[in-house]
Amino acid sequence: MLGPPGTLNTITPCAACKLLRRRCAQECPFSPYFSPHEPQKFASVHKVFGASNVSKMLMEVPESQRADAANSLVYEANVRLRDPVYGCMGAISALQQQVQSLQAELNANREFAIDGKYHFALLQVL
Amino acid sequence: MLGPPGTLNTITPCAACKLLRRRCAQECPFSPYFSPHEPQKFASVHKVFGASNVSKMLMEVPESQRADAANSLVYEANVRLRDPVYGCMGAISALQQQVQSLQAELNANREFAIDGKYHFALLQVL
Repeated sequence: MLGPPGTLNTITPCAACKLLRRRCAQECPFSPYFSPHEPQKFASVHKVFGASNVSKMLMEVPESQRADAANSLVYEANVRLRDPVYGCMGAISALQQQVQSLQAELNANREFAIDGKYHFALLQVL
Repeated sequence: MLGPPGTLNTITPCAACKLLRRRCAQECPFSPYFSPHEPQKFASVHKVFGASNVSKMLMEVPESQRADAANSLVYEANVRLRDPVYGCMGAISALQQQVQSLQAELNANREFAIDGKYHFALLQVL
């Protein structure tokens, strides 16, 4: 459906160009990553990072990793919109606490587990 | 050192106003959170979110939470600058895997721990 390079993608402008009300040229930096069928994704990154920063950040990573970068920006923006004070830092902090608590529980249980193996061996002997 | 509201903070412009080369008025939205003594903090959020988005996001949270919001934006920006492809999503994903792995280890050890308690009780009886 697309014409030669540089022509306009007039049939299906990407979510970014639709939101920004601009022409979606074939070399549009957003169109491979922001489908018009999922307008919310670009709306989120636009609110949090701004369109020009998103474009700049995508261009700064190798092309093969731009889809991953776009997805992670969408993820991060959605977390920030849900938690405007702590954003991803809140999620990271909660997970770090969970890891610490699990490690403490594991260390405590390890002692019992060692006892378990020891007592089981002892019972085999008796 | 500051004059009446609305006057210019000409002695120590905040890190944001210094970077943006603008006058730092007393009602500057950045000055309470971006000290001129830590210029890197504003440089990071400016690179990732852009100054106007940072200001907008700070203004959208209650004043009592703006310092936390500014700190979390600095944290998030620094993670993105270190990992331009995955940012905080990479850290969250790694922590989620660590939680899953610890939980699996804990479940396995729980069985031994239960055995440990059981065999210990059994040994008391024998």
